[in-house]
Amino acid sequence: MHIRIASGKILDTRKDENLLQAFKRQGMYLVASCGGKGICGKCRIRIFDGKYHTAHTEKLSPEDIASGTVIACQTFPESDLAVDIPKESRLAVGDILEISKGKELLEKFRSSGEILSPLVKWLPLSISPPTIDDNSSDLERLQRSAEAAGLKNMRFSHRLLSSMATDLREARWDIHLGYIEGPEAVFVAPAVRGKRYGAAVDIGTTTLVVYLVNLDDGSIVDIGSTYNSQIRHGDDVITRIMYASESGGLGELQDTVVTDLHGLIMPIIDKHGIPEENIESLAVAGNTTMTHIFWGLNPEFIREEPYTPTVNFFPVWKAEDSGLKIGMEAAVYTLPCVASYVGGDIVAGVLASGMHKQSGITLFMDIGTNGEIVIGNNEWLITAACSAGPCFEGSGIRHGMRATEGAVESLSINPLTFEPALGIIGNSNPLGICGSGMIDAITELFLSGAVDQKGKFNRGCATGRIRDGVEGPEFLISANNGRDIVLTEVDIENILRAKAAIYAGIAVLVKKIGLTLDVIERIYIAGGFGHYLNIEKSIIIGMLPDVPREKFCFLGNAAIAGTYLCLLSDKMRREAEEIARKMTNVELSVSRRFMDEYLSALFLPHTDISQFPTVEKLLRK
Amino acid sequence: MHIRIASGKILDTRKDENLLQAFKRQGMYLVASCGGKGICGKCRIRIFDGKYHTAHTEKLSPEDIASGTVIACQTFPESDLAVDIPKESRLAVGDILEISKGKELLEKFRSSGEILSPLVKWLPLSISPPTIDDNSSDLERLQRSAEAAGLKNMRFSHRLLSSMATDLREARWDIHLGYIEGPEAVFVAPAVRGKRYGAAVDIGTTTLVVYLVNLDDGSIVDIGSTYNSQIRHGDDVITRIMYASESGGLGELQDTVVTDLHGLIMPIIDKHGIPEENIESLAVAGNTTMTHIFWGLNPEFIREEPYTPTVNFFPVWKAEDSGLKIGMEAAVYTLPCVASYVGGDIVAGVLASGMHKQSGITLFMDIGTNGEIVIGNNEWLITAACSAGPCFEGSGIRHGMRATEGAVESLSINPLTFEPALGIIGNSNPLGICGSGMIDAITELFLSGAVDQKGKFNRGCATGRIRDGVEGPEFLISANNGRDIVLTEVDIENILRAKAAIYAGIAVLVKKIGLTLDVIERIYIAGGFGHYLNIEKSIIIGMLPDVPREKFCFLGNAAIAGTYLCLLSDKMRREAEEIARKMTNVELSVSRRFMDEYLSALFLPHTDISQFPTVEKLLRK
Repeated sequence: MHIRIASGKILDTRKDENLLQAFKRQGMYLVASCGGKGICGKCRIRIFDGKYHTAHTEKLSPEDIASGTVIACQTFPESDLAVDIPKESRLAVGDILEISKGKELLEKFRSSGEILSPLVKWLPLSISPPTIDDNSSDLERLQRSAEAAGLKNMRFSHRLLSSMATDLREARWDIHLGYIEGPEAVFVAPAVRGKRYGAAVDIGTTTLVVYLVNLDDGSIVDIGSTYNSQIRHGDDVITRIMYASESGGLGELQDTVVTDLHGLIMPIIDKHGIPEENIESLAVAGNTTMTHIFWGLNPEFIREEPYTPTVNFFPVWKAEDSGLKIGMEAAVYTLPCVASYVGGDIVAGVLASGMHKQSGITLFMDIGTNGEIVIGNNEWLITAACSAGPCFEGSGIRHGMRATEGAVESLSINPLTFEPALGIIGNSNPLGICGSGMIDAITELFLSGAVDQKGKFNRGCATGRIRDGVEGPEFLISANNGRDIVLTEVDIENILRAKAAIYAGIAVLVKKIGLTLDVIERIYIAGGFGHYLNIEKSIIIGMLPDVPREKFCFLGNAAIAGTYLCLLSDKMRREAEEIARKMTNVELSVSRRFMDEYLSALFLPHTDISQFPTVEKLLRK
Repeated sequence: MHIRIASGKILDTRKDENLLQAFKRQGMYLVASCGGKGICGKCRIRIFDGKYHTAHTEKLSPEDIASGTVIACQTFPESDLAVDIPKESRLAVGDILEISKGKELLEKFRSSGEILSPLVKWLPLSISPPTIDDNSSDLERLQRSAEAAGLKNMRFSHRLLSSMATDLREARWDIHLGYIEGPEAVFVAPAVRGKRYGAAVDIGTTTLVVYLVNLDDGSIVDIGSTYNSQIRHGDDVITRIMYASESGGLGELQDTVVTDLHGLIMPIIDKHGIPEENIESLAVAGNTTMTHIFWGLNPEFIREEPYTPTVNFFPVWKAEDSGLKIGMEAAVYTLPCVASYVGGDIVAGVLASGMHKQSGITLFMDIGTNGEIVIGNNEWLITAACSAGPCFEGSGIRHGMRATEGAVESLSINPLTFEPALGIIGNSNPLGICGSGMIDAITELFLSGAVDQKGKFNRGCATGRIRDGVEGPEFLISANNGRDIVLTEVDIENILRAKAAIYAGIAVLVKKIGLTLDVIERIYIAGGFGHYLNIEKSIIIGMLPDVPREKFCFLGNAAIAGTYLCLLSDKMRREAEEIARKMTNVELSVSRRFMDEYLSALFLPHTDISQFPTVEKLLRK
């Protein structure tokens, strides 16, 4: 049987394969936050011709069902089909996003007085060419020269030796020896070398970011970003770990991220005419699961109590060990992880924030696909992962989506008419609602009285926008597009859970160290989400603590910034390791106190309103 | 077009491809000592139907040509052909030879009081399993345990880490950590391990030998031997180096030897029910070219002045680095080489002989495909490669062949009738003449007066066996088989060259150290050829020095014996390295004195007969 897509493309089907699987097998990816388990209801498609059977789901309204809309992962064809895939169901992976940041980072690095000292060191060596009276082997000659320069007991990999004889002769015995700590030789280059390049890589659960860096002066040559195509297999680290545990799953996830990185880096080096072999080192950061998957290490024990990663402090390995086909001999520095749910991205973020060098106490938050918190100063650091979940990236929210074109990113509600005014990314028709839109919506609904402290709709409001949907009460945000966009009570519940987890995490850590919130001098908010976050509204819903607003500071993608610093300097790499070593991880998932704090934080803004004095004041008005 | 072999097999042909190439492409290998350059005349086949064109060659008699015999590498089909491949033209590679030696080696090792200390050391470690209060990563836990046991700064390869999490849990955290010097971890095994195994591998230009060894007690489990299939690409190291320099040639040669070794080792471990992963280490010896090819290192600079190998002292690499698919993580110790033409096989041989520990001066000779000489004692060692060439293995000799079934291995000639009496391996019909047969033949012809001091036939002899052949004068050894076997004047010239090279090598080394032959207390003869060598006759032709016969001692395959010792013990590996470091290599190819000595030794037995007093006495009789 065949499936004809409205675009004209024709796909085939296989026995016992649902439509999501059939699409995926043939390279057409749908949003499937739950990994295709029928839970998220995101892989909606409309079938306008043909026979099929599909499971019942509350994610579809009677109008949806009447129009032929189905959840692809729950639908099996019974004849040839003609289908239409709405834009909001399509997974926009593979597109390269542009980020225009990072230029100020080098200035910051330079102004700190740090010395540029990338991972690979280069030693100029003039090796005496062999003669008939002194024809000891190439390797002995190289070793002799290196030892004379003070490098003893250097290790030589089989791969380096494979081309060494030719390399030495082509360079006429006048070489630069590239080596890493060990010492281990990694490159034999001619005396006159090309420019040195490296890449800083941030492997986010949702987004991949690469900085291509000139290592001679530290400047950022170019920046690339793309969605992590692993999204095909689920939105959060848990679904990824589950996929990795299936037969062949780990290899597939590793291939996926490596292929993404290849697709990100190759166009950049092509564009700048950089020979691939001039990429001498990489610095890679990710959460613990992403880091394990990048290196092909089974992440399944991360998920099982007592939550033990295979490695936190990674040896320097070669790019090819990850399967990466760019600069295969490039030395790879991996940002050290702290625990199963606090990874190298957080260490990098802390490094970039500089909080580990300040005497005042800082709260660092990374609200990305997960939610991690660090509190500390130049003497101590304590950290926790809040399991906030990826709802702010759209996952688990009926019309949730990432902050891409068509997303409702801001919203205000007229308290009298309950009519919303929408800010939409790209000013197009609304396709869904992203994290900052969700926070706005709940705040506005709450302040206007349409939603109570428990997150339930007030059915007495004089508006037809609050109505009964297939999943229960919902608020109609937009009906513009012939397709309703709603925020359901179930959505609000999910968002409250996420914000409660974040706030409870902060509360537990603060209490753990025997202090109160007011001792925190600064709050750094990192993560892509951070940029669009409305601090005031985030406090009103009780996600962020109610402290003076000037303490808040957005860091943007601090993970890539810290990774970039590690690419540049030995001292930064040592600092990253010190940070990782110093951080005390608190396992919230087994903490009774966390559960108490979490339950208290499930209200708007909190069961203990005294923790939110400015909100209390606002509500009284 | 097609070629029908008499056996019934049908091969195809390609444009511009000679018959040798067509056969080789389709897995049918002919003897081709010269590598298919039309020089050796060994790849004879008979075409009894079809059209072809072929180059003129002196290697074929008018009778040969009349019978349709051609040299395959010089022949191109012009129609379908029917051909017959005589037995002597077929290359018997791939057959596993049986060797019944080695049992006494372990006794010798044990009686020396050495301790069994294979390359991989095992450390029992009881690692504390992770708990929720101590859930640092697997690697950190392992490192902590190893450091407590005194192993600091251990390196961990990416590959080891790939399976470590599962290995640790399957072993319930009670493990044996296998590691090599560095230290570098190589195995994580359960506390209760299986038996430990290793393999000693001798990569000869002609023959491969493997000892499979139980490393718990040092006993030899089994022995296997096969021809080196690289013979397809030429008999000696020079033709192999030339082949390696062609596009894809090096990889092909490496694959060939690795495949041979796989075919040798797999049946042995299957037979003994040994799990492949229990092979924890290998010790490998070969001449410098064979060693480079095994590791995939381009050997071309070995052949170019000033004859510089890429490596003499090899790092310990993994089996998989060579492409070997057995015990891929096994640590491989490579016997160190001395120079381009004095390899690890000679170092192993010296080690096995024990000459480096004796105060008396020993002459060590390995007369294999090449010819290497070592002179020395416990204070000094001097060595040279003689470039004797592989003529004693049949290469470059009209009817030369290896010492396999059908080879004339001994021969005596009635001094009155000039009728020869033949000793043939396997008592079959003679197919050719092997090294020991050649030495016998020349000695007998010389003593009977049929050949003069210069190696020329005495045409006045009253025998029809001396006659004119296609290449000039020849002696008919056998006409039994409907096919004449002859020894030609050109053959004798080649053999004289080989024996002169060996004798001149000895003479140069002896003079180099300012001594005379009589100070040599012992002469060790190693190499497969050694076994069948008639000492008396080798002295008469002037290949071996004329010293008291009791000084001579056959060592057999000393290379594999020394390699086996290195598999067993740290001390032996250190001794091998000391031997390699201590040996002074003399490059005979650029030595004026060698050329003089060589020219003097081209006579029977020598231009200076006073160097051969017992031969002089014999000739006077």
